[in-house]
Amino acid sequence: MASHAGTTTLAQLADLTGATLRGDGETAIAGVAGMRNAREGEIALLGGARYIKHLAATRASALVVGQDFDTSVTELPLLIAETPDAAFEAIAARFGPEPAPVEPGIHPRAFVAPDATVDPTASVGAGCVVEAGAVIGPRTALLPLAFVGRDARVGAECVLHPQVAVLERCVLGDRVVLHSGTVVGADGFGYDTVDGVHQKVPQRGIVEVGDDVETGANVTIDRARFGRTVIGRGTKIDNLAQIAHNVSTGEHCLIVAQVGVAGSTSLGHHVVLAAQAGLVGHIHIGDGSIVGAKAGVPGDLEPGSIVLGAPAQDIRNERRCMVLYQRLPDMARQAKQLAKTIESLEERVRHLEGASEDD
Amino acid sequence: MASHAGTTTLAQLADLTGATLRGDGETAIAGVAGMRNAREGEIALLGGARYIKHLAATRASALVVGQDFDTSVTELPLLIAETPDAAFEAIAARFGPEPAPVEPGIHPRAFVAPDATVDPTASVGAGCVVEAGAVIGPRTALLPLAFVGRDARVGAECVLHPQVAVLERCVLGDRVVLHSGTVVGADGFGYDTVDGVHQKVPQRGIVEVGDDVETGANVTIDRARFGRTVIGRGTKIDNLAQIAHNVSTGEHCLIVAQVGVAGSTSLGHHVVLAAQAGLVGHIHIGDGSIVGAKAGVPGDLEPGSIVLGAPAQDIRNERRCMVLYQRLPDMARQAKQLAKTIESLEERVRHLEGASEDD
Amino acid sequence: MASHAGTTTLAQLADLTGATLRGDGETAIAGVAGMRNAREGEIALLGGARYIKHLAATRASALVVGQDFDTSVTELPLLIAETPDAAFEAIAARFGPEPAPVEPGIHPRAFVAPDATVDPTASVGAGCVVEAGAVIGPRTALLPLAFVGRDARVGAECVLHPQVAVLERCVLGDRVVLHSGTVVGADGFGYDTVDGVHQKVPQRGIVEVGDDVETGANVTIDRARFGRTVIGRGTKIDNLAQIAHNVSTGEHCLIVAQVGVAGSTSLGHHVVLAAQAGLVGHIHIGDGSIVGAKAGVPGDLEPGSIVLGAPAQDIRNERRCMVLYQRLPDMARQAKQLAKTIESLEERVRHLEGASEDD
Repeated sequence: MASHAGTTTLAQLADLTGATLRGDGETAIAGVAGMRNAREGEIALLGGARYIKHLAATRASALVVGQDFDTSVTELPLLIAETPDAAFEAIAARFGPEPAPVEPGIHPRAFVAPDATVDPTASVGAGCVVEAGAVIGPRTALLPLAFVGRDARVGAECVLHPQVAVLERCVLGDRVVLHSGTVVGADGFGYDTVDGVHQKVPQRGIVEVGDDVETGANVTIDRARFGRTVIGRGTKIDNLAQIAHNVSTGEHCLIVAQVGVAGSTSLGHHVVLAAQAGLVGHIHIGDGSIVGAKAGVPGDLEPGSIVLGAPAQDIRNERRCMVLYQRLPDMARQAKQLAKTIESLEERVRHLEGASEDD
Repeated sequence: MASHAGTTTLAQLADLTGATLRGDGETAIAGVAGMRNAREGEIALLGGARYIKHLAATRASALVVGQDFDTSVTELPLLIAETPDAAFEAIAARFGPEPAPVEPGIHPRAFVAPDATVDPTASVGAGCVVEAGAVIGPRTALLPLAFVGRDARVGAECVLHPQVAVLERCVLGDRVVLHSGTVVGADGFGYDTVDGVHQKVPQRGIVEVGDDVETGANVTIDRARFGRTVIGRGTKIDNLAQIAHNVSTGEHCLIVAQVGVAGSTSLGHHVVLAAQAGLVGHIHIGDGSIVGAKAGVPGDLEPGSIVLGAPAQDIRNERRCMVLYQRLPDMARQAKQLAKTIESLEERVRHLEGASEDD
Repeated sequence: MASHAGTTTLAQLADLTGATLRGDGETAIAGVAGMRNAREGEIALLGGARYIKHLAATRASALVVGQDFDTSVTELPLLIAETPDAAFEAIAARFGPEPAPVEPGIHPRAFVAPDATVDPTASVGAGCVVEAGAVIGPRTALLPLAFVGRDARVGAECVLHPQVAVLERCVLGDRVVLHSGTVVGADGFGYDTVDGVHQKVPQRGIVEVGDDVETGANVTIDRARFGRTVIGRGTKIDNLAQIAHNVSTGEHCLIVAQVGVAGSTSLGHHVVLAAQAGLVGHIHIGDGSIVGAKAGVPGDLEPGSIVLGAPAQDIRNERRCMVLYQRLPDMARQAKQLAKTIESLEERVRHLEGASEDD
């Protein structure tokens, strides 16, 4: 069961959503799920014609469908909705509510340094540590075991999930959400190698995170060697992504899971980096570019580029190359065949030439 | 030295294992190691004929060998065992014991919300935080600084290593082991983009982790958009893997380090995903399939598939392609040569045709 | 603004660095930044001729330049320095000081087990947990919320950043720096599969980290199955890298972000693994080898190898292959053309042969 929020009936969900009920309104519904992993007592969304193939196998106790759905294909109880997505979202919200709002104040089990500044409307959870000189803005929530370092500044209405670290002097804007395990402001990876020994280059800068940024879990964003690493306003970063020192992202970028961006690379605005892509350092990715999954980008990209592959190239050519790569065994066979044909042709031509000379 | 468990003698280890001693039984042994990184005072396993090449360079003070080992090739003291693996495992256990069992009870430096339920046989370590409504099952150990969120449920005999986070409403079965830094239940990466601004899609579901699941360190498993993300019973996940929202894995899967599985993808049972592989979202991987290291899987896989490459294809064809890829310079040279040969042939044929017309 | 360290004037920075001032010495400077992301009030380094293209767009209020800089190309106030890098570093240090030294002693909000040994010159921050039998060396700093497990040993002058975990019995040398979220000593990924069920192989060994090692954030280094996983002296590891059980690295290696090294693989000294590379298990990488970004290394490498690609091969051949891969569509077109030419040649030869027979 996907929820502790208790069981309801299908009729009640019809009321909640304004959908038309077909079948037994007393059907007990205890949660929502996808059609393929629903269990008895759960309601699933039939999201469109292409999901009808899953109808036979679903164990859902009821379905939300659209008004164009051919109700004769199933005997399951149905909620027939004008906008099935919205109806389902309302039901999901019934069973999976937003997290309870945190209460303002500093938990007695938190440690806040005497000269840190915590807005009275902010919440600092159990086990949190806020160091000297740090500033926590209004209505911001530090969930348990979060860490905010010396002289760091966290804006208004931010959420730092459990075990987040925002290190010394780093700056977060307003409405920033950092999921658990994210580290903002670890040292960049910089060494001078002298006689084979790697000597640390001081990483003196900070990370500056714009308003409305969200990062996933276990993301790493390194502080700049000097100046700042910048995450632009509205940019969203997925789990386990790596943002190196002195990188700057534009506004409203999407950086998907496990992407790595090397040092001093800059992204324009509305750039999309798909999962597991990697960008070398010191390049610029133009506004609105899209880098495909697992791509390796070795140089600058013009605005609006769409690239794939490692090294990345225009996606249309890469797709052709991908197809031909998988046909290499055929190509090799054909090449061998051609070589044979040519050899035999040569023999035949030599023969003809002999004959011709004989003439 | 690999252990604090003190030094023993080779003769005592012969007693411990029932192996036959050759050489000085008074040889002091302080730990176990591999042949290649053993130090003086350590005993190593000669795991089979192919490791004999490391004999000359090893600094181990003694070896465990099988009964078929030609003892004339080394002068090192030996333990000759019927089952060398088992003998070595017993010695390793002597020097590297299982972690001491944790003591039941709530550490005075832990914080457990008043209405959380902790089984009296469970252990909650220093610095842990257990939120309101959470349930911790019998004989489960929360090691220091672990976090269990509001209304989350942790089954019996689980181990949450230091700094694990199990977030609100998520559910763990019995005997689940989560290593340090693993985050269960961060929000999935879901946004609707309206006028270029990414608006968060509420992630209302949970993560449900089956019995006997183990995850490595710094793994991320996101909560579902609605319903649940599911990790099937007996599945094992290695470090730094990413499991997106609404993914479901079957039972007894193996997901190796740094793998990424995108949203709503489902795995059958006994699926193996090798290191650094990536799977796109909304696909199904059939039972028993094996996805090779670094593979990128763009679509459904039939049960029993074995694939490699990016995009992934049948491993046999991919292996041929890999070989031919590395021969592309040769192929290009040969193609150039062929083109030349053909050009010359054309010339000769043209000449013959001229001659023929002359006839 | 990249700093809380207050504003100064350009003339004061000229004094600080011994550089020659050109322009308004009263220019207020509040921080340092790169030319491309500098803001008003910040000073940037013009690092060489290739950055002159960014001059027009920079919003920096002043620049540090070398003595060979053609000062006529900009009207910005300048600091003209003999060694611009050093001058800029001095200015960066003015605005981004080293973290304040931590104070010796155990924070009242830390928990140190009664029989752990903490050197009186060491610092244990708020929220830290140090377990029984652990040893913390002189002048070492455990920053807040760090964890050191039972019988672990941390040497002298180490820094464990917030939320680091060093697990039971693991050993760190001197001057080791571990950034936030790094996990040293989680169990290796080892299972025996019996009747389709994965049974855990005990991971009894430890991790041993040499002197002067630094790891980035959210790195994972697993304990050995037996014996030890070894990180050699002076080796530096970037964020989110994965080091599996029984791996050993030589001294002074560089392991860049998101690299994965599978079990029992050994690296020589001065090996470089670039970002997102992956190494299979049980191989040896010779001294001084360089593995390119995203490479997949399937077997041993001789000392001094430089490889790229997946599977990795000598970088020169891989680069040729990469170029030819992107030309596959051309090659396929040419092959088709050649085939046509040959077909037509065959026809013509057949015709000639007919004519010849006719003779």
